[in-house]
Amino acid sequence: MNSIEQLIEIALQEDIGSGDITTDNLVKPDIKGHGKIIAKEQLVIAGLDIACRVFERLDPQIVYKPLFIDGDRVENGEVVVEIEGKLCGLLVGERTALNFLQRLSGIATYVRSYVDMLGDRDVRLVDTRKTVPGWRVLEKYAVRVGGAYNHRMGLYDGVLIKDNHISVCGGINKAVDNIRNSVSHFMKIEVEVSDLDGVREAIDSGVDIIMLDNMDIKQIKEAVEFINGKALVEVSGGITIDNLNHLADVGVDIISSGALTHHAQSVDLSMRIDV
Amino acid sequence: MNSIEQLIEIALQEDIGSGDITTDNLVKPDIKGHGKIIAKEQLVIAGLDIACRVFERLDPQIVYKPLFIDGDRVENGEVVVEIEGKLCGLLVGERTALNFLQRLSGIATYVRSYVDMLGDRDVRLVDTRKTVPGWRVLEKYAVRVGGAYNHRMGLYDGVLIKDNHISVCGGINKAVDNIRNSVSHFMKIEVEVSDLDGVREAIDSGVDIIMLDNMDIKQIKEAVEFINGKALVEVSGGITIDNLNHLADVGVDIISSGALTHHAQSVDLSMRIDV
Amino acid sequence: MNSIEQLIEIALQEDIGSGDITTDNLVKPDIKGHGKIIAKEQLVIAGLDIACRVFERLDPQIVYKPLFIDGDRVENGEVVVEIEGKLCGLLVGERTALNFLQRLSGIATYVRSYVDMLGDRDVRLVDTRKTVPGWRVLEKYAVRVGGAYNHRMGLYDGVLIKDNHISVCGGINKAVDNIRNSVSHFMKIEVEVSDLDGVREAIDSGVDIIMLDNMDIKQIKEAVEFINGKALVEVSGGITIDNLNHLADVGVDIISSGALTHHAQSVDLSMRIDV
Amino acid sequence: MNSIEQLIEIALQEDIGSGDITTDNLVKPDIKGHGKIIAKEQLVIAGLDIACRVFERLDPQIVYKPLFIDGDRVENGEVVVEIEGKLCGLLVGERTALNFLQRLSGIATYVRSYVDMLGDRDVRLVDTRKTVPGWRVLEKYAVRVGGAYNHRMGLYDGVLIKDNHISVCGGINKAVDNIRNSVSHFMKIEVEVSDLDGVREAIDSGVDIIMLDNMDIKQIKEAVEFINGKALVEVSGGITIDNLNHLADVGVDIISSGALTHHAQSVDLSMRIDV
Amino acid sequence: MNSIEQLIEIALQEDIGSGDITTDNLVKPDIKGHGKIIAKEQLVIAGLDIACRVFERLDPQIVYKPLFIDGDRVENGEVVVEIEGKLCGLLVGERTALNFLQRLSGIATYVRSYVDMLGDRDVRLVDTRKTVPGWRVLEKYAVRVGGAYNHRMGLYDGVLIKDNHISVCGGINKAVDNIRNSVSHFMKIEVEVSDLDGVREAIDSGVDIIMLDNMDIKQIKEAVEFINGKALVEVSGGITIDNLNHLADVGVDIISSGALTHHAQSVDLSMRIDV
Amino acid sequence: MNSIEQLIEIALQEDIGSGDITTDNLVKPDIKGHGKIIAKEQLVIAGLDIACRVFERLDPQIVYKPLFIDGDRVENGEVVVEIEGKLCGLLVGERTALNFLQRLSGIATYVRSYVDMLGDRDVRLVDTRKTVPGWRVLEKYAVRVGGAYNHRMGLYDGVLIKDNHISVCGGINKAVDNIRNSVSHFMKIEVEVSDLDGVREAIDSGVDIIMLDNMDIKQIKEAVEFINGKALVEVSGGITIDNLNHLADVGVDIISSGALTHHAQSVDLSMRIDV
Repeated sequence: MNSIEQLIEIALQEDIGSGDITTDNLVKPDIKGHGKIIAKEQLVIAGLDIACRVFERLDPQIVYKPLFIDGDRVENGEVVVEIEGKLCGLLVGERTALNFLQRLSGIATYVRSYVDMLGDRDVRLVDTRKTVPGWRVLEKYAVRVGGAYNHRMGLYDGVLIKDNHISVCGGINKAVDNIRNSVSHFMKIEVEVSDLDGVREAIDSGVDIIMLDNMDIKQIKEAVEFINGKALVEVSGGITIDNLNHLADVGVDIISSGALTHHAQSVDLSMRIDV
Repeated sequence: MNSIEQLIEIALQEDIGSGDITTDNLVKPDIKGHGKIIAKEQLVIAGLDIACRVFERLDPQIVYKPLFIDGDRVENGEVVVEIEGKLCGLLVGERTALNFLQRLSGIATYVRSYVDMLGDRDVRLVDTRKTVPGWRVLEKYAVRVGGAYNHRMGLYDGVLIKDNHISVCGGINKAVDNIRNSVSHFMKIEVEVSDLDGVREAIDSGVDIIMLDNMDIKQIKEAVEFINGKALVEVSGGITIDNLNHLADVGVDIISSGALTHHAQSVDLSMRIDV
Repeated sequence: MNSIEQLIEIALQEDIGSGDITTDNLVKPDIKGHGKIIAKEQLVIAGLDIACRVFERLDPQIVYKPLFIDGDRVENGEVVVEIEGKLCGLLVGERTALNFLQRLSGIATYVRSYVDMLGDRDVRLVDTRKTVPGWRVLEKYAVRVGGAYNHRMGLYDGVLIKDNHISVCGGINKAVDNIRNSVSHFMKIEVEVSDLDGVREAIDSGVDIIMLDNMDIKQIKEAVEFINGKALVEVSGGITIDNLNHLADVGVDIISSGALTHHAQSVDLSMRIDV
Repeated sequence: MNSIEQLIEIALQEDIGSGDITTDNLVKPDIKGHGKIIAKEQLVIAGLDIACRVFERLDPQIVYKPLFIDGDRVENGEVVVEIEGKLCGLLVGERTALNFLQRLSGIATYVRSYVDMLGDRDVRLVDTRKTVPGWRVLEKYAVRVGGAYNHRMGLYDGVLIKDNHISVCGGINKAVDNIRNSVSHFMKIEVEVSDLDGVREAIDSGVDIIMLDNMDIKQIKEAVEFINGKALVEVSGGITIDNLNHLADVGVDIISSGALTHHAQSVDLSMRIDV
Repeated sequence: MNSIEQLIEIALQEDIGSGDITTDNLVKPDIKGHGKIIAKEQLVIAGLDIACRVFERLDPQIVYKPLFIDGDRVENGEVVVEIEGKLCGLLVGERTALNFLQRLSGIATYVRSYVDMLGDRDVRLVDTRKTVPGWRVLEKYAVRVGGAYNHRMGLYDGVLIKDNHISVCGGINKAVDNIRNSVSHFMKIEVEVSDLDGVREAIDSGVDIIMLDNMDIKQIKEAVEFINGKALVEVSGGITIDNLNHLADVGVDIISSGALTHHAQSVDLSMRIDV
Repeated sequence: MNSIEQLIEIALQEDIGSGDITTDNLVKPDIKGHGKIIAKEQLVIAGLDIACRVFERLDPQIVYKPLFIDGDRVENGEVVVEIEGKLCGLLVGERTALNFLQRLSGIATYVRSYVDMLGDRDVRLVDTRKTVPGWRVLEKYAVRVGGAYNHRMGLYDGVLIKDNHISVCGGINKAVDNIRNSVSHFMKIEVEVSDLDGVREAIDSGVDIIMLDNMDIKQIKEAVEFINGKALVEVSGGITIDNLNHLADVGVDIISSGALTHHAQSVDLSMRIDV
């Protein structure tokens, strides 16, 4: 939770700076208020704890009562959270809390539409590293809230051998041998290939996962048949909500889509505050 | 530039963590490479300096040659930047640099479409505080690159008196008097009102700027006539690219739109690396 | 309050370093004590909350009972605060807490003497950016406690165009136009001029505030008449408690004085601790 | 130098915040300028390196040519430093650099007046811990530049047993024994006493230094005779430039004065910048 | 390298604090010196880059010439590094640099003795999380320099299901199912078992790695036969240099030993400095 | 305690990183557990407060009941601490808490063996600066827990003049004079010498402490007789538990040994957790 706390601090700092000159000068610190966060469209809520932390940093005695939990579908007009505490804290924290909720719920809502489309197909829909800098952990959390899975968190927790790695090592085999000797025994090793020759070489190397990058559906089908369970198969590139089920039905194990985070738009939530 | 450097550091840290286990183990530190960042759709580029800083932190000797400057329109397929340096630095920095460029250029591109729609109408299109937490300075920069203006940076550099402030002070007049005595003589004071009574009271108080919040076009027209140059007029709420010109033509001074940052989607850029 | 907390931490760190080798070794951690902070001269008290925070960081259970509030005049010998808590906390925090109180009260006391001299004249006495590095927010707070107003906090929250800016832009008009297009609509724009020609050019440019820098009283009078309410008038340079009322009576709106912070001396407070 | 760099960063941060909105918008980054820092009164200069670091952080290529070294006496009107570099860097750094120089030179100048008064008397004039929070290292440096010596830096590098310590330990003897067993063999141990009984008990305890706190000149004389070289003798409390030599002539080893830092006023320096 | 830089800074800070009062006062900053780091016993060197960084932080112009690379065996009396630079930098950095080298080389030397004992047996000797807090990355690096492998870096990059996890989940099967749905597809899953029943249940669950915790050699043998390649087999607990080969010969895949870091003693290196 | 808190944070950060992927996914946050930390060999316990802080950072409501205090001897198999709280907190903190306890208790145990060997001889056994970088304060604390004393904490709180200092100053006398004028009156001054000529010169200079570096027992004896109480005598270099009493009996005041920290091995403690 540490890096999230840090982001909350940065967010409050960039908004408040040397002080909220309107509220600090007009609202006495001991005036109490209550607030409601309301959905302005249908959405899947995500980030309720983070919004709570925003208010708690401004007023540790805040009473924060969520009426939903992360992952719930919320209808337009429904109250998501009720909050009671110092009016100052509510006014100063409102925008930052909403900014967190709107983006995270936006991702969760968007991901959910993909997940619903897939239904109960036996495939793992995963995100990528196309996240807003500083938000990796949060956006990947929102993806899970939406119902999909995470690819590696970063460069440190998954081996993904790409074309440049292969060419400096002199082939997939050498790269895979090399890396297996270097990383912990926990790590599965993935190779990205773009044609069937690559698939064959990858299978020879004993790799654990093969990523088929930007192949067409016919090639993917052939690759899946060739691999035949000897490695996990991931497809990547050009995934849209429209071709999702085609890919799933071909028998791949993993579909990765940058759009899950990268194309998600913020959803609309607002806050009503009363004294 | 300090808070931007901090965000770059966080971004690299969250991606690299304890190390890029693929590249660190497969690519010798002294191998050189060159890379090209390429637009994958038509866009307005923003964030070239930041992408440069990402690579510089990984390899201080990097040679980074942008072929455009922030604000330029770039066509699909055009090379935006050429980079030469250590292959490791290119591979490790690629995703983070692109993640910065894609979001900032996405905002600049989206804002530009609004600005182009407005043409040479004499109105100031401004953003809001609906920015991704941690990205306030960057997103507001991208808005300027796109051709629009910034509203206040945060709660510290502009007085905006809203309904809660008014009610705890006992009216607009009292709130405005109070705040004028509290803030520096540099600050113009803005009041948010939602009807013509509010407009009248605001004018009485001698306020500098009046924000018409979520009024319809007819009310706005009336308000502008009533105010008649005694204060700047800002409209806010429900602004879309479609009603933009209607609002502008009514004679308001400032149009603020959260969508400029909040609805902008990342644009697509990719990087090709060769050894 | 964040940057103040940071300064308190730095202050305790620089004093305590690797530990109070006297107290840590001689005083058992559970011994209780009580302390009194006493004015050793007549003063206007400022910084009571900060002194409290110093002790709270050393002993979160401290009971801190101020007998005055910031801005009160305190006579020589009066007890300002009573404190009860761990003796260690009192002994270790004493010097740092007093160092904060002495400087802030010194500024408040000094500023109050200017404010009293001005009486109810309709002029705004403001400070400058001549503050002790690291203490900007605190010293400006003490100025307000003393009864005066703040000029801009820093370079970020007020536009002040000086001779170098004017010369690189090619005149006041160009500089003002330029800046108006660059900053938010909240910002009034101030130009510093040193003669009547400058005043005329500034008025032409439609600037909001004109600073008359180091002009003599006769020139200031002429300038005020010429400006005649079209802009706020600030005088700066060579302000002393002796010429203050002359300036005020000439009809300027704002008098800025670096001496308010820069010439203020610490006042004397001491702490008596009993076991 | 680390904590000084940190203070410089804080100082620039509090002044610049989200940017110098005047200079950033009016001055192109590649315009060069030159500046001169000029003494506006007779002073002892201190802090030249720190002022240099301020400018270097804003423009690493700055050329900074001091015409004096710390400790030199400078006459009113003399140029202290010449600087060449980016005009932006000069304009943005000017105030912060001067704020450092003015306070440090103020202390050095004030201390020098005490040191000159003492002439070649064989006594060590030292400062106290009455320093501006955050400035301990810098102010103690300025004291040395002025020609005096430092007392302990903080609570960590000198044992000073005061009345509260003595009372919880049950007497000077017990406190001294106790502490000698706790601290490193490098540390001399000092006891603060307020009468001749205290002096006698301190000598019995074999303490290394005795501080005579707020005694009158007659008592001090008696104490010095009684101690007779068995411990160093420090006097403290009520030291002024007027009674300094009386105290020195009585034969004490060390005179400590909080006023050296606490009563020092900033001196006046200004900067002239040309394009 | 970031967390290592942070540790270097902490290390220098804790040693230097407010300054090296001996060197700062006796050695002029421009005096040059040269130094040699010499092995005082036979050792495997590790940490040469880190020692270099220590000196570079104190003197960026230092010339640091290592005569070996990490992993080399060095004989008693051999010069490991030659350094030229400011005498101050050498004197101030000496102890910290040696403290890094001594511990890291101590680990590498100790690990090498285990690795040599194993010879070319086909087993992976790995470390554990028993590292000095703050030193995880460094100590795991030294283990690799010594010739062994790393277990997971921390709790974030490897799934290891222990008895408490199993009991709250209601059995190995449930825990494994649960976790497989939660972590990325890169992660192999390991279960710790302490008897053959555990082994059987683990195999049933389709786990990737089985840790045999504190089993005797006979049980381990049975377990290896039962598992028969269906999962990787790790043994842990009670590993010493004496029973290492017995374990290896039984056919386990991985031997993990906390002693590699936890029992390693610093080796002796010294530095000779000449002016 | 600040730098210790920082080290605890680093330690938890390096272990937990982006999260304990096993526990976070398998253990519900509200499940309670209890744990016992048990000695697995005879030891002197040190670090109980630090282990407590580790758990408190993960679960502020933890109930931590130590059955011993730092410095107590604990037998193999005895329970040292009982802990109750969230199972997650126990599982996540276990390794880090043990890693702290094992090293600190290892040092305390090792130091105690030296202290016991010395019995009631009138000599001060002290550590050196040979500590694990980042652990200076903690390891010096463990030395005191073990029953020995601390040498200076770092370069900032003790003057130790070595051969390089002497040679650049032109002799011991000049170095000592020089430094006495530079440091506070609290500081005793120590000179390191390696032969009797050095001893004589040191005595002439009026130094407070003389370190006899790597002399043989006969030389040490001669030196002690020559010095004859005019300065404290420290011996250093080649101290082992075997020659300790010989040195003590010769009449030196201080014996310093790097081995106290540098050769200490971690002791074995484990934690049993039940749901």
